[in-house]
Amino acid sequence: MQPTSYMQQALDLARQALFISNPNPRVGCVLVSACGHIIGQGFTQQAGGPHAEVMALRDAAARGSSTQGATAYVTLEPCSHTGRTGPCCNALIEAGITKVVAATSDPNPQVAGQGFARLRAAGIEVQVGEGASASRELNIGFFSRMVRGTPWVRMKAATSLDGATALHNGQSQWITGPAARADGHAWRAQACAVLTGIGTVLQDNPRLNVRDVETPRQPKVVVIDSKLDMPLDAHVLKAHSGCTIYTSSTNISKTQSLQALGATVIAIPNAHGKVDLAAMLRDLGTRGTNELHVEAGFKLNGSFMREGLVDELLLYMAPKLLGAGTMGLASFGPLEQLSQAISLQVHDVSRLGEDVRLVARVAGRDQF
Amino acid sequence: MQPTSYMQQALDLARQALFISNPNPRVGCVLVSACGHIIGQGFTQQAGGPHAEVMALRDAAARGSSTQGATAYVTLEPCSHTGRTGPCCNALIEAGITKVVAATSDPNPQVAGQGFARLRAAGIEVQVGEGASASRELNIGFFSRMVRGTPWVRMKAATSLDGATALHNGQSQWITGPAARADGHAWRAQACAVLTGIGTVLQDNPRLNVRDVETPRQPKVVVIDSKLDMPLDAHVLKAHSGCTIYTSSTNISKTQSLQALGATVIAIPNAHGKVDLAAMLRDLGTRGTNELHVEAGFKLNGSFMREGLVDELLLYMAPKLLGAGTMGLASFGPLEQLSQAISLQVHDVSRLGEDVRLVARVAGRDQF
Repeated sequence: MQPTSYMQQALDLARQALFISNPNPRVGCVLVSACGHIIGQGFTQQAGGPHAEVMALRDAAARGSSTQGATAYVTLEPCSHTGRTGPCCNALIEAGITKVVAATSDPNPQVAGQGFARLRAAGIEVQVGEGASASRELNIGFFSRMVRGTPWVRMKAATSLDGATALHNGQSQWITGPAARADGHAWRAQACAVLTGIGTVLQDNPRLNVRDVETPRQPKVVVIDSKLDMPLDAHVLKAHSGCTIYTSSTNISKTQSLQALGATVIAIPNAHGKVDLAAMLRDLGTRGTNELHVEAGFKLNGSFMREGLVDELLLYMAPKLLGAGTMGLASFGPLEQLSQAISLQVHDVSRLGEDVRLVARVAGRDQF
Repeated sequence: MQPTSYMQQALDLARQALFISNPNPRVGCVLVSACGHIIGQGFTQQAGGPHAEVMALRDAAARGSSTQGATAYVTLEPCSHTGRTGPCCNALIEAGITKVVAATSDPNPQVAGQGFARLRAAGIEVQVGEGASASRELNIGFFSRMVRGTPWVRMKAATSLDGATALHNGQSQWITGPAARADGHAWRAQACAVLTGIGTVLQDNPRLNVRDVETPRQPKVVVIDSKLDMPLDAHVLKAHSGCTIYTSSTNISKTQSLQALGATVIAIPNAHGKVDLAAMLRDLGTRGTNELHVEAGFKLNGSFMREGLVDELLLYMAPKLLGAGTMGLASFGPLEQLSQAISLQVHDVSRLGEDVRLVARVAGRDQF
């Protein structure tokens, strides 16, 4: 259902939580008086802080507006459980709200509908569906974690027009220009975690933090390091939100050295002595990872692709040609038939400075 | 200078000549009476047929409108020489036109300004510049041939998102979908010639004609075939507008066999026993080639790129990933520094069905 202007406003508010509310969903709330005036607005704050509904009620109170008989437009089903904050349903009931228009129900199948039931039991009229797909899109990672138990896996890459991510000697900084790089930082900022492989750590020693955009929080850093080759002075070990290392190694002394530097080391080996990537995603799900931003190299990208674990491709293409003998995007294959290709659907195409950004989804992966 | 609505209308008419007027430029003409009514319209017909100005005068005559005192909006300087048709300047003078608004002067430095001089000598007011860049864009190949003596070289390729043009086994049909393929045929239709290499002929035996769009004329087919390996039953030899083969071979009997089938065989060897591509472009220029549409493989594309002969890249990208071990776009390189990349500028990005089309120009190549 298409959103009305009130719900559109609530969605716009929800977008303001993009870098803020993780791992909670981005939710916006607009309170509308019986005569159609917006009397309060709010969006979800940092984890542990107030939800959108409470922020909107506080806003109304600060403006001296009565919420008796008002309608709440909210982009997600109000919560009915007591987490780090009290249930939003109670706050709405106590405020005298008489109607709630919600974009979509809670994606967690175990709690979906409970908020609506609580509201209806209190005599509040509830409508659901307006702006549902926009709300889901904005929280695709939260929905993924709630429904699938695993993060939404977004693979970022920067290539030339002929598909090169690096020269044969590894040189890759910078293929794309400043506008594309800043945009890449904004995508990092909305992710719960940024993942790379030990190959990239050894080659580039990246920080993987958010730099080019303002953000109140930094994503966690995750490194896949089968043999625990991590240098103890690697930048990623100083990540502000902590560094998690997935390994298949049982090297206790190296593990302890890394732990002493604050890293979390988790061994999830598969049968081939590598990290079990699917199990790692489940583990990241249990650790509250909504969107996982993968910035890795040819080999690790290939493993993710080969195992069918990628949901979305965030591809920056620079108007350059790098010719033959370069590194490509992902090492899976070689394929024998075009029909074996990994199929995607283009979600968005934009121009950023001199570059082109393409967001494409692996076919069927957003059907959950 | 931005075009007025009359000039915009003339440019729209010129666009109708896109598949028709080659190797003549695409020109449109609008005749406007003293009181501001459009009294005649026309665009350039097929080579040897009437030019835009004559078509517009005929249109006015057919409508019974007097052209005395009218203004002519025309997207290119009217010709003052007698070619296969009489000079347009004379026709405008005889029709009593009192003002000519032209988008741009004739790009041929040897005749530029002569049309305007002739008109002014007859007492006609002449204004130049409105819609100049749009007119030049529409005729970029004609301008290239007139100014540089060589065609505008547009390289077409269809790739996956990871830059593959074919699997390791050569399979490439079809990477892109029907909308992209039809669009590719429209670009063929506006070219004077479609070029490929003998490798593609041997691998795919393509027709290289225009099929998916309506066109009154077919482009010529050009094949680069250093050793004259062309099979005598190749589809390209039956090209409706003729097949030209550039070679470095002096095999007289094979040459004669190909000529007997109607092909034009031209030997332009370079010092390495290959075809001298730069000299070939000059030869194609003398043969009236405005836009040269290159649909070749990895190796020949690489030669064109390495020698700096490509002006524009027409890239269709399918939302697929084909992984490692594939064929890329062009075989030049390997590069040692990113600064050695071939730099382009994105000219246009569009979505065609499931695919994305990108038109990019090699930096500086349109500055002539």
